[in-house]
Amino acid sequence: MATRTRTLRLERGERVQAVCVLGSRLTIDINGAAPTEAQWFSMRHSQNIDAEICNSDTSKMKVINGEKLWSLESGTVMELSMNTPSTEANDGKVTIAYYGPGADTPIDKAGVYLTGVEISLDVDADRDGIVEKNNPNKASWTWGPKGQGAILLVNCDKDSPVSRMRDGDDDIVFGQKDLEDMSPMVLRTRGPEKLPKGYHLLLHITASNSDKIAVFLYQNKMYSHVLGRSKLHYKLRYTGTNEKEFFVEGLCFPDATFPGLVSVSVSLLETLMEGIPEAPIYTDMVTFRMSPLIITPNILEPVEVFVCSVKDNYLFLKEIKSLVSEAHYKISICFEYVNRGDRWMQDEMEFGYIEAPHKGFPVVLDSPRDGGLKDFPIKELLRADFGYVAKTALCSDVSSLDSFGNLEVSPPVTANGKEYPLGRIIIGTSFPTTNGRRMAKVVRDFLYAQQVQPPVELYTDWLLVGHVDEIMTFVPAPDRKGFRLLLASPRACFQLFEQKKKEGHGDAAMFQGLETKRYTISKILSTDTLRQENAYVQRCIDWNRDILKQELGLTEEDIIDIPALFMLEKNEKNGKAANGNALNGKAVSFFPNMVNMIVLGNELGVPKPYGPIIKETCCLEQNIRSVLLPLDLKCTFIDDIVSYHQKLGEVHCGTNVRRKSFAFKWWNMVL
Amino acid sequence: MATRTRTLRLERGERVQAVCVLGSRLTIDINGAAPTEAQWFSMRHSQNIDAEICNSDTSKMKVINGEKLWSLESGTVMELSMNTPSTEANDGKVTIAYYGPGADTPIDKAGVYLTGVEISLDVDADRDGIVEKNNPNKASWTWGPKGQGAILLVNCDKDSPVSRMRDGDDDIVFGQKDLEDMSPMVLRTRGPEKLPKGYHLLLHITASNSDKIAVFLYQNKMYSHVLGRSKLHYKLRYTGTNEKEFFVEGLCFPDATFPGLVSVSVSLLETLMEGIPEAPIYTDMVTFRMSPLIITPNILEPVEVFVCSVKDNYLFLKEIKSLVSEAHYKISICFEYVNRGDRWMQDEMEFGYIEAPHKGFPVVLDSPRDGGLKDFPIKELLRADFGYVAKTALCSDVSSLDSFGNLEVSPPVTANGKEYPLGRIIIGTSFPTTNGRRMAKVVRDFLYAQQVQPPVELYTDWLLVGHVDEIMTFVPAPDRKGFRLLLASPRACFQLFEQKKKEGHGDAAMFQGLETKRYTISKILSTDTLRQENAYVQRCIDWNRDILKQELGLTEEDIIDIPALFMLEKNEKNGKAANGNALNGKAVSFFPNMVNMIVLGNELGVPKPYGPIIKETCCLEQNIRSVLLPLDLKCTFIDDIVSYHQKLGEVHCGTNVRRKSFAFKWWNMVL
Repeated sequence: MATRTRTLRLERGERVQAVCVLGSRLTIDINGAAPTEAQWFSMRHSQNIDAEICNSDTSKMKVINGEKLWSLESGTVMELSMNTPSTEANDGKVTIAYYGPGADTPIDKAGVYLTGVEISLDVDADRDGIVEKNNPNKASWTWGPKGQGAILLVNCDKDSPVSRMRDGDDDIVFGQKDLEDMSPMVLRTRGPEKLPKGYHLLLHITASNSDKIAVFLYQNKMYSHVLGRSKLHYKLRYTGTNEKEFFVEGLCFPDATFPGLVSVSVSLLETLMEGIPEAPIYTDMVTFRMSPLIITPNILEPVEVFVCSVKDNYLFLKEIKSLVSEAHYKISICFEYVNRGDRWMQDEMEFGYIEAPHKGFPVVLDSPRDGGLKDFPIKELLRADFGYVAKTALCSDVSSLDSFGNLEVSPPVTANGKEYPLGRIIIGTSFPTTNGRRMAKVVRDFLYAQQVQPPVELYTDWLLVGHVDEIMTFVPAPDRKGFRLLLASPRACFQLFEQKKKEGHGDAAMFQGLETKRYTISKILSTDTLRQENAYVQRCIDWNRDILKQELGLTEEDIIDIPALFMLEKNEKNGKAANGNALNGKAVSFFPNMVNMIVLGNELGVPKPYGPIIKETCCLEQNIRSVLLPLDLKCTFIDDIVSYHQKLGEVHCGTNVRRKSFAFKWWNMVL
Repeated sequence: MATRTRTLRLERGERVQAVCVLGSRLTIDINGAAPTEAQWFSMRHSQNIDAEICNSDTSKMKVINGEKLWSLESGTVMELSMNTPSTEANDGKVTIAYYGPGADTPIDKAGVYLTGVEISLDVDADRDGIVEKNNPNKASWTWGPKGQGAILLVNCDKDSPVSRMRDGDDDIVFGQKDLEDMSPMVLRTRGPEKLPKGYHLLLHITASNSDKIAVFLYQNKMYSHVLGRSKLHYKLRYTGTNEKEFFVEGLCFPDATFPGLVSVSVSLLETLMEGIPEAPIYTDMVTFRMSPLIITPNILEPVEVFVCSVKDNYLFLKEIKSLVSEAHYKISICFEYVNRGDRWMQDEMEFGYIEAPHKGFPVVLDSPRDGGLKDFPIKELLRADFGYVAKTALCSDVSSLDSFGNLEVSPPVTANGKEYPLGRIIIGTSFPTTNGRRMAKVVRDFLYAQQVQPPVELYTDWLLVGHVDEIMTFVPAPDRKGFRLLLASPRACFQLFEQKKKEGHGDAAMFQGLETKRYTISKILSTDTLRQENAYVQRCIDWNRDILKQELGLTEEDIIDIPALFMLEKNEKNGKAANGNALNGKAVSFFPNMVNMIVLGNELGVPKPYGPIIKETCCLEQNIRSVLLPLDLKCTFIDDIVSYHQKLGEVHCGTNVRRKSFAFKWWNMVL
């Protein structure tokens, strides 16, 4: 509500006082103080004032005794503005002299004393990491490389080693590191040392923004919390030409009811009368957008791999450790006293980051799934420059589809003419036409509200566990779009097995060396239920394939089918997916599901499929190796059959990877 | 989530069945059913199918025994679509024959039986009042004269004389009149009488839309409620070439959490397997926007004037009746057994209307202010083709600023390069910098959510009652923008009185014939507190004047200052504004406030100001008459001093006017 043109009233025979903020205008009705008989008027003003007479017939102008006279007509107004800040109060002067019909001497006078001040609330609206002076676009916010408007981080890390809260959860500043997570804001004033009596500056925010941001003032080497929560305004003394330093921290991520924009205003208040609210006569505003949480896809470089140590996964852990250390990444093991027997590291959390031009840091998104790993993200990950945000829901609203094995993100894509430089989030849900399981509304709303990675919804409720990572993954590729989509494919598995049978290997058996029922290739090919169930699974996957092609702009060449077999469970099972839903006829993997892999650059940790051994080689391993080798991808097969597969998960479900940020800045997106 | 390209899998040696919806495509991997040794393939298809081979090297094509052979390469796919609906199931045929290196006779075959159907969910997406066929833009919704997308009315009237609920509050259709308030929707199908087994049609809505709309199906001369509330989907039998008639009613106005768009989809479901959710293989969608509530400004032609009869307003009532009947409008008097002594007809409700291309009707918006008139809108106004919507709030959140004397709307304006063809809502509030009274969030949110009349917020908390109608009104004008803004002006009053004093009428007295203290012009001009208080009031009004000029794009020539005087009340008063707030120093009218008038075309019912009598004429009456007469506006002065003015309101507060709709259609706005 920036009022840039203001009405000022003259008093006949007097000189009224007013403060004029540079960049604003005053409109003055010349008739307002004119004696009834006045027909002409003259106007003089000091050099620091720009004045213009409007709605006077200039053809009637005349000069009498060296004085230029305007014709006074109904509607004649004067517009004033100041071109430099005053050096002392009231150093701008305007004098109007009124003349009667004779126009020889003035019959009355009226005048204005003006004090010019410059007021500018400044932020880094051009997004170069530096607060500039009075950016004309600072009040609004636009996307894109030419976009303008400042950026805030949700101060969701914890710079104090002793605090149990995130930095944004209290109203104090914990040293330099905490400040760096905030966006600087400067209030610049220029003008005389003192203003005429009755003027104040007020910094203010709206009630709806009060739980979204906190503003700290740096003064006398102290940081005071001046706006936020119950503080909607903060009165500032005007102290002449000055710069006041503020720091703004974000408190809330964009969400269903918060689009992400917050504004801070400064107003110059004028006391109209004692005991009455002061009127804002000039308002300057800056607008910030909260950085969204950006989820990192597989193709970004890994930083740190997370995995649980539980009582029965020693060998798995050893193989993962060896893979990670060979690839020279960091590994973090979550021990049993923290994970309480919960091995599903993928499902408890998702890694992402937030970013502003001056700063960015990783953030862990804690899922509403609260297993044994419940406290791991907040207790073990939240720290200085490592943020934390949780989405919680009522127990009754949480299903297996809320585990973050069901939350992935594609590499950058272009689809239907739209660019997605940060990729698109991929989540699994039910058909819109059924009453099946869905991700909790609170999580879906949050993911959609981040805006920069618009979600694609797949149909995964046909799976017992119901996660997108059971049917797909993305791997980096040196050619084409820079990646391939790997899709689990019963069809590809049957084709492979048929070919092997034709080559005389019908007796080659799966699951060798395991205490499970052995299946030969011929047996699998001739088991009707397996055939039928996998035909159904293939159609479910094809349905998702069609959506992924359309929503990510993929062609057949961008997709690689990875052999997989599923079977339908007729009854609810114990374990990971035991969530109380009716699970009749939902699909689980028949053998370790190779697409459920960990992707570490060119190194892939693939669930060891225990496929039919032909010439001492597993033909499934050989198949996936042969299709991925041309892409310079190296497969390491990791035995997860007892420790994960039989508990309805695989390598991907049991691990999590923190990755580097995108080089692309999210604010450069064109939405 | 309309999937228009679908993957279909061949079976070697078999002919698979599929339904193909016209407008969609099937992609078929030719390699999928190819024997290992196949190098060539031929393809034949029936005339109702369009087929294309992709990713085959056409330079290698050859003709053997009259058969055209394509080279089979990895990635070779066939794209199929159907050009006409089938006359019987499976009447579309495609045959692929595979050839080995020799390419003389086929070594294997695969094929497809296709059934073509046309499915279209149709609405009036081009907004001409008629449901058209398969409008390509029906799934989205755009504003403007070239905009597309259907429109819904909130079925908030009451067509049943016996029901106590609004039509949309139940799930039944009350005859033809109720149907007319709904938007027609037609499901058109073309194809064979029967589809292959396992296909169904499903009409469906999302859970978040289930409380926003109801869908009724007309069948066997009955209307059944098929979607809405707990009903998210409705299964339909496919019955060949057919048109099914539906009627859609809106249940909710746009609001803070509901932007106003709702969609209905139809999907063709395919049974993949017994006992498993059916997969949607084709989805068609239509989108409706709920008509916003449009408030009618003063310049629209009146239809009906509402006024209360209370024990002490007999003369006022008589004068209003005479004014309305002279102007040939309808008058409705609300008697005491209904109004229970509450005379503030303006404050309890606001009139507006909703509109769709096929229908529109007036709607009363019931304010959260619940005085004696509380039940008047729902009991006396709600009826057939007269809608009702209430905004309620917690008592503690309701202030005098929630009365609808504080809700007005401007005539159509253009400001800052933006057109507002339906005007802008004007509400009074506090400075953003203070903790003063504000309109309840629930009302403000509602007004903003209607979108088509974006609110302008004035500062009115300085007034004891705090309503915008205490300082301004709009009157029609034959020139310029078609209207003038009238603003209450202490300045204009002092100027007038000074002139009259100079003309020798300093002894002329106000309030003649009343049992109140008499004030002469000289006395008023020399009373310092009155001078000071009105200087303050003038500045408050000027602050609003500057906002109105900016936000409505007005110039000085569009504004007329109407003489008014205010005084500041030091203590809380009984009466209309007794709402528990601290009211120290808030302004009330000193004499009946002329801008608080009723506008009936060119006839204005103006509060009789009881101004100083000069030559047997009230100089205030004469002043307003003389400035409005050139605009062809006739002032009738109505004595409200005892019955309204002394209770802190005037003519406008005591009346309400239902007006005709705008000729301009809201959906033609460019937002």
